[in-house]
Amino acid sequence: MSKIFVDACFGKETPYTPVWMMRQAGRYLPEYMKVRAQAGNFLNLCHNPALACEVTLQPVDIIGVDAAILFSDILVVPNEMGMDLEFVTGEGPQFNNPIKTEADIDRLIGGEEAASKLTYVYDTIKLIKEQLAKDKALIGFTGAPWTLATYMIEGEGTKTYNICKKMMYSNPALLHKILAKVTEVVKFYMEKQIEAGIDVVQIFDSWAAAIEPSKYDEFSWKYMVEIADYLKSKYPHIPIIMFPKGIPAFLDKVYGNFDVFGVDWSTPMALAKEKLGDKYVLQGNMEPCRLYSQEETTKCVEALQEIMQGKRHIFNLGHGILPDVPVANAKHFINECHRVSKK
Amino acid sequence: MSKIFVDACFGKETPYTPVWMMRQAGRYLPEYMKVRAQAGNFLNLCHNPALACEVTLQPVDIIGVDAAILFSDILVVPNEMGMDLEFVTGEGPQFNNPIKTEADIDRLIGGEEAASKLTYVYDTIKLIKEQLAKDKALIGFTGAPWTLATYMIEGEGTKTYNICKKMMYSNPALLHKILAKVTEVVKFYMEKQIEAGIDVVQIFDSWAAAIEPSKYDEFSWKYMVEIADYLKSKYPHIPIIMFPKGIPAFLDKVYGNFDVFGVDWSTPMALAKEKLGDKYVLQGNMEPCRLYSQEETTKCVEALQEIMQGKRHIFNLGHGILPDVPVANAKHFINECHRVSKK
Repeated sequence: MSKIFVDACFGKETPYTPVWMMRQAGRYLPEYMKVRAQAGNFLNLCHNPALACEVTLQPVDIIGVDAAILFSDILVVPNEMGMDLEFVTGEGPQFNNPIKTEADIDRLIGGEEAASKLTYVYDTIKLIKEQLAKDKALIGFTGAPWTLATYMIEGEGTKTYNICKKMMYSNPALLHKILAKVTEVVKFYMEKQIEAGIDVVQIFDSWAAAIEPSKYDEFSWKYMVEIADYLKSKYPHIPIIMFPKGIPAFLDKVYGNFDVFGVDWSTPMALAKEKLGDKYVLQGNMEPCRLYSQEETTKCVEALQEIMQGKRHIFNLGHGILPDVPVANAKHFINECHRVSKK
Repeated sequence: MSKIFVDACFGKETPYTPVWMMRQAGRYLPEYMKVRAQAGNFLNLCHNPALACEVTLQPVDIIGVDAAILFSDILVVPNEMGMDLEFVTGEGPQFNNPIKTEADIDRLIGGEEAASKLTYVYDTIKLIKEQLAKDKALIGFTGAPWTLATYMIEGEGTKTYNICKKMMYSNPALLHKILAKVTEVVKFYMEKQIEAGIDVVQIFDSWAAAIEPSKYDEFSWKYMVEIADYLKSKYPHIPIIMFPKGIPAFLDKVYGNFDVFGVDWSTPMALAKEKLGDKYVLQGNMEPCRLYSQEETTKCVEALQEIMQGKRHIFNLGHGILPDVPVANAKHFINECHRVSKK
């Protein structure tokens, strides 16, 4: 059975423009909060295939999105490479042993060995595929090497990225060594996600905007392209979505063998269309806070439909949905995307 | 005596391109840390004209910048409007009574009455002007109404701005009421700073990037332009610098009666030159983390000089200097700016 979301990723004609939302399996859903409480904490939920499967499927059933996205966290990768991950309540993720030296990198588990340890992710994917409707797609994902490296180096979320950037400007070889090692693991990780059954790959570069535009290719984009090249050479039938958040000034330089470019909300869709609309399918990009108002949601969906008329498009938010959005408003967004694009 | 910095703001020929650094009176300077300790806390330092004057002058003497910038904080304005400001160690500024309703706005002190309470700022300016070398300029500043409003509404720094944005999308009239009230105070505040002796005005919109590009004019830029118009009508000899941080996608729409556009580091200088270089003097924009490396600093200064050849330019960082930058590297930056631009 053909999946409208996969068709849209390849730029094929579809009966309407499909839509999903970043963080759609999340805290705005009371059903999610219930399972989350059952799991005890966030990391337990990632590690439990039955519960992770359950929350992955919730937005498909409740909100009516066209694709499910695997419930997991980007930081399970460095965690299985040997970094001690903890989610501190109210403070977010922390690594208690951040990378400072070459020896710290050498100590980490690399390549297929690290990727093989993420069995709970592959088990979750298999469970989801058994239960997901055949006309819906399952998106697997990874963090970009740069985004993963920022946590591994800073040890926690950061406003200034000053430890990473000190390394970038005064010891770039060390940073490249980390990025290369993470890239190798991610290649195997995504390959195993594909083998387990995902239909689409998304690479999230959540902290893309932390790098000055003239250095972005060197420290992030080229590693994302390396991963895409590797996957495309083995699995050309699996679409790849690149989502670098907040790089409107880099669009002229975007290159690579992937299918969909995820547009964040700080990048006007008209600009993305002008720069990239002939080369890639564009995904996005409603400002997630518009979900607070059904009226502003409708306005934005109609404007996006107008801008993307005749171009290849997938609806999405320009970043993750926030926890205090009413479920009815999320549903309204999905319905409006379907309504305005129906042929 | 003519001030090279003021001349450069008006696009006049100068013997070299002047330079200053955002947050140049700051924690990277041991001399600053000493005065800061003497003051007890940050807010005390802002309230003490003798000490605020001392730290304002430090970078002129120690680093050799071409302009001093008044030592103060943007949040003294809402504080004097009646909001209870506290700097919590390790957490940053907090208002214990954030604005939620129209009544909360009505309770705030407005216009000239609020601006008149900021006597310690005007006293600081007078002291600085007595001691600052006559060929150096003193920059006074304010936060943009939007940036001030984010703190007044959220009560503290925020990653998501979701309280402000809920207001933006579901009750825009209330947000405009706050912005209009703050704008009125800021007009008088900057007028009084000018009367006290500042040579240049800078308006910081530090959280510009929190607004989606299609809403930026409505909720921030137009209020900044209103302030500039007011000041220009009374003080045309005082240059105005606008610094909206992180809006590369808005450059096509920039308008208004001001002199210098401050380019942040996420906006490539070549792009700013193309879009705005004929209309405004451009200030900026080295990535502050380049200061960790003298070699990377030199490369960037030379590249900026090359790009801005024949255009009107003021050197600066693309955001504030970080506390762990070696003083020698900051000095190297200033020296390099002077070296490459000397005529």
